[in-house]
Amino acid sequence: MRKVAVLGYGTVGSGVVAVLEQSEDQIKRKLGEEVQVVKVLDIRDFPGDPIQERIVHDFEEILKDPEIEVVVEVMGGLHPAYEYVSQSLCAGKHVATSNKALVEAYGAELGVLAREHGVSFQFEASVAGGIPILRTLNTAMIQEEIYQVTGILNGTTNYILALMEDTGATFQEALADAQARGYAERDPEADIEGYDAARKIAILASMICGKHIRYQDVPTQGISGITKADIEGAAALGGRLKLLGSCSQENGRFYVSVEPTFVPMDHLLAAVNSVFNAVMLKSSMLGDTMFYGKGAGKLATASAVVADVLAALDGNGVYEMNTWSSEIEEPVHPADRPCRYMVRAEGAQTEHPLFASLVPSEGGFSALTHQCSRKELTALLEQIGRQAKVCSVFRKMEE
Amino acid sequence: MRKVAVLGYGTVGSGVVAVLEQSEDQIKRKLGEEVQVVKVLDIRDFPGDPIQERIVHDFEEILKDPEIEVVVEVMGGLHPAYEYVSQSLCAGKHVATSNKALVEAYGAELGVLAREHGVSFQFEASVAGGIPILRTLNTAMIQEEIYQVTGILNGTTNYILALMEDTGATFQEALADAQARGYAERDPEADIEGYDAARKIAILASMICGKHIRYQDVPTQGISGITKADIEGAAALGGRLKLLGSCSQENGRFYVSVEPTFVPMDHLLAAVNSVFNAVMLKSSMLGDTMFYGKGAGKLATASAVVADVLAALDGNGVYEMNTWSSEIEEPVHPADRPCRYMVRAEGAQTEHPLFASLVPSEGGFSALTHQCSRKELTALLEQIGRQAKVCSVFRKMEE
Repeated sequence: MRKVAVLGYGTVGSGVVAVLEQSEDQIKRKLGEEVQVVKVLDIRDFPGDPIQERIVHDFEEILKDPEIEVVVEVMGGLHPAYEYVSQSLCAGKHVATSNKALVEAYGAELGVLAREHGVSFQFEASVAGGIPILRTLNTAMIQEEIYQVTGILNGTTNYILALMEDTGATFQEALADAQARGYAERDPEADIEGYDAARKIAILASMICGKHIRYQDVPTQGISGITKADIEGAAALGGRLKLLGSCSQENGRFYVSVEPTFVPMDHLLAAVNSVFNAVMLKSSMLGDTMFYGKGAGKLATASAVVADVLAALDGNGVYEMNTWSSEIEEPVHPADRPCRYMVRAEGAQTEHPLFASLVPSEGGFSALTHQCSRKELTALLEQIGRQAKVCSVFRKMEE
Repeated sequence: MRKVAVLGYGTVGSGVVAVLEQSEDQIKRKLGEEVQVVKVLDIRDFPGDPIQERIVHDFEEILKDPEIEVVVEVMGGLHPAYEYVSQSLCAGKHVATSNKALVEAYGAELGVLAREHGVSFQFEASVAGGIPILRTLNTAMIQEEIYQVTGILNGTTNYILALMEDTGATFQEALADAQARGYAERDPEADIEGYDAARKIAILASMICGKHIRYQDVPTQGISGITKADIEGAAALGGRLKLLGSCSQENGRFYVSVEPTFVPMDHLLAAVNSVFNAVMLKSSMLGDTMFYGKGAGKLATASAVVADVLAALDGNGVYEMNTWSSEIEEPVHPADRPCRYMVRAEGAQTEHPLFASLVPSEGGFSALTHQCSRKELTALLEQIGRQAKVCSVFRKMEE
């Protein structure tokens, strides 16, 4: 029997215990042995729950137990998660975590620690929980040069935008619906302002870049300013607004952002609805690939953590999930390259050679531009502004 | 330097050589060493091509070279591929192959040989070349129970169906276009009659089942009988016809088929166009996931083979791609369970409680049924037949 400890018996932690139990047969078939959660660290007690007899309140009991091979960190937050994870690695224990804040902030350092101590540090569940995108980048795609990652990385905002489009709800109404269904938290800021997606694209970008692209350096715009008129304007232009995290690599520079983006209706990402996530890659030999699945949820996230646990225990070698160096790479704003834009304005229509298509709407118009520089865009917006009010500007996704 | 031999210098074989060269940096970063193709078996010579000095005509030169760690089999066909692969495994060499006929026929046996000799036998490229679906099933999803696999597994037929829909071309016209572009072979039978997709779904189904589901036991119907009227009828009902390979597991039985299938327009698989492939899974914890990418093409297929080569050489452990036992599992026809159907008829409309929706067309109608048994379907078709001619019947995909 292989022994595992779990730090934090919240949603994901209890999910990990459940998945390991439910998958007993599959795991035995793969490893030839059982995997059991023998200790669970939590400050709370769970009287009446069968987990209670495995609850410990002191991390040392886990750290000093030589039979525990893997520590699962699903407590969230930076501290004491960072201390517990680094101590676990130094004690020769593999670590699997779903904690994107931890991975984004300390991934480089923890990757080094893991290598030094010959153990694995894995974090598949930290980005798009139910989609094995990090493992794919680390295995099936290791021979590829990745030019571009574009992802719907936050299910809450994707649900809200889809609901606004399907029902004509306002942002506030759609948010309230998402909260009522448990898709959005009571304090929804991290989701709706794009910070959650920014952490995830920062992790993906860092993995591809090999240096640390910090989430606070990622230009980030959320969806709280999106109006019904924006959604209708996008639809009139044959597209949809999606909150995309994106990272493109060109001439050694990394163009990274999180922002509501115009996605053409015939693009696969436009078909990703509800709380689902999707990650699209462009790479040197494979070209376009896309990976789709649940972004969150107790069992989906827990399943990803369990896959990390099994990879740590399986075989003889150490499965090394690539991290990145602690050297900081400053990402570039995508608008520093020529981009295409959706512009929505209220007032009189403007004629302009930069417009690729224009659709009038009640009291105004929406238009898609050709590729233009930031300077050309500014001039265009000024010209529109003489006869109309520019209400919103969104980038069109790079294809 | 790690040494590899390639059997067959055709499209994929030359692609493998090219990908290993183009990915030198990525590979060095991962393995810390170069990987080089030192011998290439082919009956032909390639005067003037730099490969010529590595061409050998006798397999023994590869088999007896103790420095060659991995043999890449991309010659196709069953013989002598089978003999070369089994001899390589017995000689302690890892094997990576793109040969779906070989894997489908001898996968069980070759998997055992590999285990006995402590080497890896991998075949990612044999199913949906550019999509790392087998590796995902073997790693990220090892803890999952897979209930259903549904895939667009053949790019040629997907291209033909999309072209018929987009341009109103007949099947023959679309096939000619695909041949002119090199998407279809001069003898297109294996693609258009579904045999290629049947081999791929047989491999996926066997991997999930753990026993051998033979491709010749998979009920298979191709697309050569699809008419413009069928495509228009599907569109009128809010869907698209796609050639799907599918395998569902229920109560220990495996329902497997390849057939043109009605896919609702809002389903992600409906958005998979051109020569792309996609595989959708339903599993116990992750729920729905989908993987999308190129199904074929020199570099995409070669890249998948190279990923297998790197997995064989990377780390200390042997990467074991799960195969299946040689025990034969007889798949069940999906129509043995209640299914929904699209029916297209010419003549007078029939009223029937089994119809969920019905759309009239010039001289006839198309309809979607509710779930019905094979017997109920037969009775329905008989009733329609009294006043009209039943032109076609397609299953609706299971959702």
